[in-house]
Amino acid sequence: MTASSPAASELVARRARLLAPSYRLFYAEPLQIVRAADVWMYDEGGRAYLDAYNNVPVVGHCHPAVVEALAQQARTLNTHTRYLAEQPLQLAEELLATLPSELGRVIFTCTGSEANDLAVQICKAVTGRRGFIISDFAYHGATDVLAGMSPEDGAPLGPGVYVVPSPGSAAGPAEFGAGVRACLGRMQADGVGVAALLLDTIFSSDGVVADPRGFIAAAVADVRAAGGLFIADEVQAGFGRLGEMWGFQRHGVTPDLVTMGKPMGNGHPVAALVGRAEVLDEFARRRRYFNTFGGNSVSCAAARAVLQVIRAEGLLQNAERTGAYLQAGLHKLAARQPAIRTVRGAGLFIGVELGNPRDGASGAAETQRVVNALRHRGILVGTTGRGGNVLKIRPPLTLQPQHADLLLRELEQVLPAAG
Amino acid sequence: MTASSPAASELVARRARLLAPSYRLFYAEPLQIVRAADVWMYDEGGRAYLDAYNNVPVVGHCHPAVVEALAQQARTLNTHTRYLAEQPLQLAEELLATLPSELGRVIFTCTGSEANDLAVQICKAVTGRRGFIISDFAYHGATDVLAGMSPEDGAPLGPGVYVVPSPGSAAGPAEFGAGVRACLGRMQADGVGVAALLLDTIFSSDGVVADPRGFIAAAVADVRAAGGLFIADEVQAGFGRLGEMWGFQRHGVTPDLVTMGKPMGNGHPVAALVGRAEVLDEFARRRRYFNTFGGNSVSCAAARAVLQVIRAEGLLQNAERTGAYLQAGLHKLAARQPAIRTVRGAGLFIGVELGNPRDGASGAAETQRVVNALRHRGILVGTTGRGGNVLKIRPPLTLQPQHADLLLRELEQVLPAAG
Repeated sequence: MTASSPAASELVARRARLLAPSYRLFYAEPLQIVRAADVWMYDEGGRAYLDAYNNVPVVGHCHPAVVEALAQQARTLNTHTRYLAEQPLQLAEELLATLPSELGRVIFTCTGSEANDLAVQICKAVTGRRGFIISDFAYHGATDVLAGMSPEDGAPLGPGVYVVPSPGSAAGPAEFGAGVRACLGRMQADGVGVAALLLDTIFSSDGVVADPRGFIAAAVADVRAAGGLFIADEVQAGFGRLGEMWGFQRHGVTPDLVTMGKPMGNGHPVAALVGRAEVLDEFARRRRYFNTFGGNSVSCAAARAVLQVIRAEGLLQNAERTGAYLQAGLHKLAARQPAIRTVRGAGLFIGVELGNPRDGASGAAETQRVVNALRHRGILVGTTGRGGNVLKIRPPLTLQPQHADLLLRELEQVLPAAG
Repeated sequence: MTASSPAASELVARRARLLAPSYRLFYAEPLQIVRAADVWMYDEGGRAYLDAYNNVPVVGHCHPAVVEALAQQARTLNTHTRYLAEQPLQLAEELLATLPSELGRVIFTCTGSEANDLAVQICKAVTGRRGFIISDFAYHGATDVLAGMSPEDGAPLGPGVYVVPSPGSAAGPAEFGAGVRACLGRMQADGVGVAALLLDTIFSSDGVVADPRGFIAAAVADVRAAGGLFIADEVQAGFGRLGEMWGFQRHGVTPDLVTMGKPMGNGHPVAALVGRAEVLDEFARRRRYFNTFGGNSVSCAAARAVLQVIRAEGLLQNAERTGAYLQAGLHKLAARQPAIRTVRGAGLFIGVELGNPRDGASGAAETQRVVNALRHRGILVGTTGRGGNVLKIRPPLTLQPQHADLLLRELEQVLPAAG
């Protein structure tokens, strides 16, 4: 790893001295970022980078309405949910209004990991079972129990965790329902009751799989018929990124539990679990749960401001419109560029699969080359998928067509010359 | 439960409709809080309450320096640790400067639960063992694995989790070392290797046990001799509350891992794990870990401001001085008040045990009565301990002698007339 400037080199050396080596930097030449606004991030020399990667700043970096709400509430009160206060109730009302009426109760946490971990605890407690079904390259979070449900991160599967072939694999979405049915059969044979099916509704780590609409519905029905619950992990897909508020809406299913996080506070650590009242009522009868910072006054103010900006600026509509524009441009590019294998996604969550399908390793290396080349041309994107050969494009939902044009132009420049 | 005003009644009803029933309110008449400053919280009618309960706002509610740091950074940049940036490194440097030099590496998380959960994962991965020793009325957090290490919350113990008699129980601190030694014997008999001893260094849920200094040291040495690590859970004791920066300093031991959270951002969700370099290096070789919001620019700015205020306002010294003043007053009160059984604690973390030692149930009811009576007199305290008969007093570290006098005066008023 080489740094791009003496200042960056010094930061790399300090990181190695101060932080655990678990920390990883993006890019062969790590990038120092000193400020950001809307879809732009700026390095220490003042150079602008188009942020087409970060899904957290969903309404644009440092959105003034979110900053002002945060600052105003922090000046007034920041306390927990064991006193009565308006903030968590207002947020709960506004959040529930975006969800199907069957989902009637909220628990606030601070991170998507905490929300997913709580969902697992709820499903275990309420069903009395320990079996969980996940896709085989899933990522659901960083706690002990979730590491065992996040094969993308390489830790061994936890006890009672079963995997089905990722819809991003060769099997594809068409085989997903059959995979879950076969998995339920294996679980029955093993005497493991199914507590829940846990799915990231955009299958981000699996390589971004959005279509066909409804492809998870049969699996959800089969899991329910076997007595299990369905947890929609909306930590990546939620808050309008797909052009609809929630990823599960693409599939015509209503989850028993919905978890959400990353974009919820536009960078502020706030997350939540929403569920059917009877499930959360039963959990409360069996177990206690309290989260000190969950639903604190300031986190609620930040999350309310994000919802307000999404509505006021029409960001669902923009995600759909600019997402369709960007996807159309990528499809056009793919038609004349054999390096692009497929373009997938919904709204502003797009995966661009590169390379030869029979050669995963060189696909990953080529994808890394493209990501690094784009960084040097002022465009930030990431990679995903089991083969590491999918460009992950998730800009703030304020992206405009001229930004999409810039991304398309630069991507074409860094791809190999079409033969 | 009855609410104190029509507005409060309406909030209680909305909570029941919107939030999961896991949520609990303090007080027989729940309190609506609308703003707070320094050691004061204010209800909707403008009445002031002395906050002698909340350990999170360690430098005082809504401290302007923390609010300003938060707002300034939120306006500029809020991003994660996969780009190079000054903020997490500056915070790591300032944090490590408060810790023994053996503790050389930091991982940031968002909550104390995430930090403790990560500590558990690290100890499992590094030792290859699954045995954990905790005190038998411990609380360490709300994730799935920590629920099994938090008997205070009533969930069953997790696999491999062993308990030793709480130093807050009849056995007392003098028996703590023998309890851990006996526990190691049971683990050996069961063929369970000890991964770690995990202790809240102020034993908050156990009823607040600070003395004698050094009472945990033999247990730490025995666990290490058996190949285990020592995790100091400083989520409650840390950041100066005991008149020293860290609770483990009272005991003359250096932990392998230190976890911290609650007060770290004065209410902002920021937390961390600090450990010996060789332990965290080994973890990184065996497992991946990333926390999206952990070490984000704004959380780091808030935590840096808290450290700065603790130094600038001499809050360790104030915690020690005003804590000693308050404890002396409580001891004087206890001498003429048979309702007070013992006064324990360090700095501004104080437990006042009430009632007859042979009658836990009536002690709990009496303690609830005292807490509710104090609330009506404008003083906020809580309860703790297995018997629920310990008043938990943890005000912001800015508490002054006149606030302590007010607390002492009101406490005397609500205790039964001395016979």
